[in-house]
Amino acid sequence: MDALYLPLIAGLISTFFAFMMLRRTLRFSPGTDTMRKLSGYVQEGASTFLAAEARKIFAVAILIAAALGILFQSYKYPIALLFGALVSELAGVIGMYAATRANARVAEGAKSGLSQAFKVAFSGGSVMGLSVAGFSLTGLAIIMIIFKDSFVYESLTEISKAFGRISFLDSVMIISSYSLGASLIALFDRVGGGMYTKAADMSADLVGKIEAQIPEDDPRNPATIADNVGDNVGDVAGLGADILESYVASVVSAIVLAIFMKLADKQVVDGVVQWGMNSDQYYRLILLPVLIAGAGVIASLIGVIVVSSLKAKDARKALGFGNIFTGILVLASTAFVIGFYAPDYKFKDAFIANPDFVSRWRIFLAIASGLIAGLIISKLSEYFTSTDYNPTRKLAQKTQSGVAINITSGLALGMGSTLWPVITLALAILGAYWAAGVYGIAIAALGMLSFVGYIVSVDSYGPVADNAGGIAQMAELDPKVRTITDKLDSVGNTTAAIGKGFAIGSAAFAALALIVSYIWSAAQSAEEIVNNPVINLVEPYTIIGVIIGAMLPFFFTSLLIKGVADSADLMIMEIRRQFREHKGILTGEETPDYKRCIEITTKGAVSRMLAPGLIAILTPFIVGFLFGKAAVAGLLLGGLGSAIMIALFTANSGGAWDNAKKFIEEGNYGGKGTDVHAAAIVGDTVGDPLKDTVGPSMDILIKLMSVVSLVFGSLFPNKPFFM
Amino acid sequence: MDALYLPLIAGLISTFFAFMMLRRTLRFSPGTDTMRKLSGYVQEGASTFLAAEARKIFAVAILIAAALGILFQSYKYPIALLFGALVSELAGVIGMYAATRANARVAEGAKSGLSQAFKVAFSGGSVMGLSVAGFSLTGLAIIMIIFKDSFVYESLTEISKAFGRISFLDSVMIISSYSLGASLIALFDRVGGGMYTKAADMSADLVGKIEAQIPEDDPRNPATIADNVGDNVGDVAGLGADILESYVASVVSAIVLAIFMKLADKQVVDGVVQWGMNSDQYYRLILLPVLIAGAGVIASLIGVIVVSSLKAKDARKALGFGNIFTGILVLASTAFVIGFYAPDYKFKDAFIANPDFVSRWRIFLAIASGLIAGLIISKLSEYFTSTDYNPTRKLAQKTQSGVAINITSGLALGMGSTLWPVITLALAILGAYWAAGVYGIAIAALGMLSFVGYIVSVDSYGPVADNAGGIAQMAELDPKVRTITDKLDSVGNTTAAIGKGFAIGSAAFAALALIVSYIWSAAQSAEEIVNNPVINLVEPYTIIGVIIGAMLPFFFTSLLIKGVADSADLMIMEIRRQFREHKGILTGEETPDYKRCIEITTKGAVSRMLAPGLIAILTPFIVGFLFGKAAVAGLLLGGLGSAIMIALFTANSGGAWDNAKKFIEEGNYGGKGTDVHAAAIVGDTVGDPLKDTVGPSMDILIKLMSVVSLVFGSLFPNKPFFM
Repeated sequence: MDALYLPLIAGLISTFFAFMMLRRTLRFSPGTDTMRKLSGYVQEGASTFLAAEARKIFAVAILIAAALGILFQSYKYPIALLFGALVSELAGVIGMYAATRANARVAEGAKSGLSQAFKVAFSGGSVMGLSVAGFSLTGLAIIMIIFKDSFVYESLTEISKAFGRISFLDSVMIISSYSLGASLIALFDRVGGGMYTKAADMSADLVGKIEAQIPEDDPRNPATIADNVGDNVGDVAGLGADILESYVASVVSAIVLAIFMKLADKQVVDGVVQWGMNSDQYYRLILLPVLIAGAGVIASLIGVIVVSSLKAKDARKALGFGNIFTGILVLASTAFVIGFYAPDYKFKDAFIANPDFVSRWRIFLAIASGLIAGLIISKLSEYFTSTDYNPTRKLAQKTQSGVAINITSGLALGMGSTLWPVITLALAILGAYWAAGVYGIAIAALGMLSFVGYIVSVDSYGPVADNAGGIAQMAELDPKVRTITDKLDSVGNTTAAIGKGFAIGSAAFAALALIVSYIWSAAQSAEEIVNNPVINLVEPYTIIGVIIGAMLPFFFTSLLIKGVADSADLMIMEIRRQFREHKGILTGEETPDYKRCIEITTKGAVSRMLAPGLIAILTPFIVGFLFGKAAVAGLLLGGLGSAIMIALFTANSGGAWDNAKKFIEEGNYGGKGTDVHAAAIVGDTVGDPLKDTVGPSMDILIKLMSVVSLVFGSLFPNKPFFM
Repeated sequence: MDALYLPLIAGLISTFFAFMMLRRTLRFSPGTDTMRKLSGYVQEGASTFLAAEARKIFAVAILIAAALGILFQSYKYPIALLFGALVSELAGVIGMYAATRANARVAEGAKSGLSQAFKVAFSGGSVMGLSVAGFSLTGLAIIMIIFKDSFVYESLTEISKAFGRISFLDSVMIISSYSLGASLIALFDRVGGGMYTKAADMSADLVGKIEAQIPEDDPRNPATIADNVGDNVGDVAGLGADILESYVASVVSAIVLAIFMKLADKQVVDGVVQWGMNSDQYYRLILLPVLIAGAGVIASLIGVIVVSSLKAKDARKALGFGNIFTGILVLASTAFVIGFYAPDYKFKDAFIANPDFVSRWRIFLAIASGLIAGLIISKLSEYFTSTDYNPTRKLAQKTQSGVAINITSGLALGMGSTLWPVITLALAILGAYWAAGVYGIAIAALGMLSFVGYIVSVDSYGPVADNAGGIAQMAELDPKVRTITDKLDSVGNTTAAIGKGFAIGSAAFAALALIVSYIWSAAQSAEEIVNNPVINLVEPYTIIGVIIGAMLPFFFTSLLIKGVADSADLMIMEIRRQFREHKGILTGEETPDYKRCIEITTKGAVSRMLAPGLIAILTPFIVGFLFGKAAVAGLLLGGLGSAIMIALFTANSGGAWDNAKKFIEEGNYGGKGTDVHAAAIVGDTVGDPLKDTVGPSMDILIKLMSVVSLVFGSLFPNKPFFM
């Protein structure tokens, strides 16, 4: 049997268990009529938004697919692109379906204790996790099986001939297009979902909590349902699509680099180029990333099943156990796959740091260096944002000097927090490169993301618990229920911080691998390939690329913040209008018009996600066609630098502001209701769109630009047309 | 006569007129006893700080000079470095001497009307302007005359031989060391001065204006003198050293590129390399930047003399006329120098975009493209920060929704404002490169900075007027006096915004030219020079350099903000202590202890400037020795990208917050004393350290790192030692 069927089977198993988990979740009781009604509102709001968003995304995806088909005169690439988009969209729809149905069930479960509530919440979240892992791997395997002819060993003659066509390597184009499809969904889901959730959150807080002085999640607040919908579309669907995309990108970039490694691995004997690798070794190198992914999917699945059947008394311990258990399983299964399948082969030429490149244990080393870096970066995020450590405690203390000092110190904290993660990243890049060349860099990203099924399950569990608390509050359940969901939610916050570390780290590795792949795919001739393509940093085209690239994340950030602020403004006016025109709402005699608020946020987010999305898609095109391929290389690398910094800065500033506020609410420096608390609330509000809209979008911005460049790179000229 | 004596004479003339202007300034009456006493406090505080700062800086400078001497076994480079530092320090001392003596005289002059006050203020500011231009050019000419032997035409054989030594081109090392000396002063003056001025400003405002509710510049506020000292050490001495450094760096990088252009300009005939340029053409190319600078100095001097003798009724018009008048003079004199002196010569090889490189009009074109870019970027700064335009007005309007929205929108404004300046910069880089290769890029920076004598005069005039207002307030002069100084000050704000645009633009060009020069100076052999050195962007060393470089400006920012906040904290405690322990201060019966406050800010700034300063100096070393020369190239370019963005973002966010507050104070959205105004004040306070400490330091951070790399580049290995 072709080894390609193994990941297909692993993907299908994960998909199957996603549906099993969905069935399991739906079998729990959804509680009272009120709870069901409230959950119904959230379900309807979420699917309305997802549908509106999907219409726009697929319009864009179809346009890009058409451009791809016309420019490259191939039906394969558009199919791969649309298939990638579809797979990602489906995973999001199913995961969201489960999450929005789990919320009331968790609240109901909390009536009989934490253990039951945890079980329901984790089951609900795991649907997203298993779908993401299962769907994406199944899709990739299918695409590779359908177009298997393109993945066979090509000789130099064939490659030289292929340069007659516009694109020269079918295999690279097919899987890159698949990855591009997933990236499109991820970008718009993250940007749209992020704008939705923060616009709803900020306006609900500003008018509800501050002006009308009603508590969070109060049913009298017209924006409260929109706020709960936001948690799902932002933190469940957005996050799922995001990590799915990282996962696909890291598998795909490893495959692409494997393809190019064959081209780099040559010897010139008497002026004649000879390839070193034979077709079996080549095929193994290509398949290795998919097989590692497949093993990771199964390991994650086992982890999910074990954790979901625990009788947990302490959610933190249960998830902690799950982390370690799944981690060990992933490492073991990866070692197994590498040991049995990786080609043991000595490379003849560079492109890898170490000419004595012996694959097996070196590949494993690269994976390990990615994993360790991910863990360290996560731990650093925790250090900077948790009240267990100095930075956030000091921020809370400084808040005593007022709002301005709170803001200034929070900005300084976030910007300063970039130092150690970047050094970790740099060392991990060198480590992976030393171990297995650029292939090592790609595969290190995969090492971080093999957990994907488990990580997304845990990350989705947080918002489910959060939503359950909202429903408990709105349905006026026993306060004990809310206490339990709050406990689950707070554990979710910690795991979310860990997830963020992995997201940023893996994005950096995946983007780097994509950038290197882009340089190869932008080669203009077989000769250039044979000589290893070089992008000279000192050319002015490269330099202006770097500067424009460094600017984009800043400009992108401003568009996102403005989008959130403008949507929130519209919502604020609507909430005020409802309170003004319907006096019965605040007395509890009248039900507020939840739907109107949902409509406004939906429209606001969907219409405002287009501009930033199109910028990410079109910039590599424009720069490529105007200034040539070196400018695009500069653009991607400059963009990567800025994007990593803004991602770290916003995540850590935002997290620290949030937790400093919570620390004060626990009674420190005067506690709730004091001036210090008021100052901390301002910091938290400023941090909200930064950490939940801007930060998470940065990863995708840079990966999407890299994938676009990889797919269209062969069309870019060598120099600006006017030079 | 050697043409090198022309710039020397121009420099000496400018220096002579600086002293004439100083004499003229001192002849104006310094007013009443009180005014003299207050001015005396400021003078003493400023010189105390400058002396404390200089001790630290020269300790660092001597250490670096010693390292330079030992590593390269040459006495020339340490001499050049210390001479560059001395020249910059002297210009600062004299300029500050004049500025701190002009303040009371301007207030006294304002008693007889705006025209007289303007005359005194401009004369006072022009001492700094003329010193900066005169001293730096004189110093450079002297160094080049002393070590003239090093600037003669070297043959390939000599260069090959030179590779036996550690450093290979004496000429490059000498002028780079001179530039490094100026950079050291600039960095510490900017960072130290920036921290001083904002710590004093913030604490004076927070305790004085908000807690004790006494007006700005009230003599009862113990921090008020420190605040006025801050304007001088930050905005006069810091700015002067900053622009002097840009000016020197752009002249030096143009000379260095001219030297390398000779090396690039060769032909290989039958395997033998032949240089194209003869010794006369070579010498002309090297001298051209110094001559252009000399012509600019004289043009600026004429502009300063004309403006200072105007009977101005409207300060804005007078300065506006001066801008245009001096601008035309500079362009005309530059064209004259190029026409008479530039070598008309056809290059044989690349390194320049256009092989038909005919110097004269193309060099002029490069200068023009720099100038136009500078103007556009300045205009864009004005657009984003002036209340005449939409962005700042909208920010003021949004402030109605509270502090959080004010902060968020201000951040978005600044980050979004990076788009067009970056595009302008990119096009100008391409334009200059198209016109005259990388030499064009260096000379474009010079185009922006030929105004230097005039620009610094105008920029220093602002703080002089500001200080005069302070003294008028403290000495309780007729409110009319304050009205006049306020008018002068507000014109100063606009011109300062224009100055910032030029500072950022020219820094970007100068840094780029230095980075390209670094690549050449880091060449390891004559062969590498002959083949044009290449830094491959896709190597992991380059990539980790880019990422670390992109991080540094963020980390640097956090250090600066923390430094300001910590110093301000100490000051706040001291002011509160004085109010508490001496009840007579607030009733006006007791004089506050100004000196104690000055001591605290001085100590705070001087001790906190070391860490960021050393980071800027040491990072290129560490990265270079650990990861090799490609990593440093990445570091510089990644750093350039981030630094430009943070400079633009902080300048424009800060400016917009400041002016939005002023717009509200003019009576819009409720005016002074309302909640909207309170929210706007928070924004202004957050913006203060960003726009006055962080933003201006970014330019120097990146230029200093580039100069350090240029000087020490030949010592960096090709690859990391462990690879």
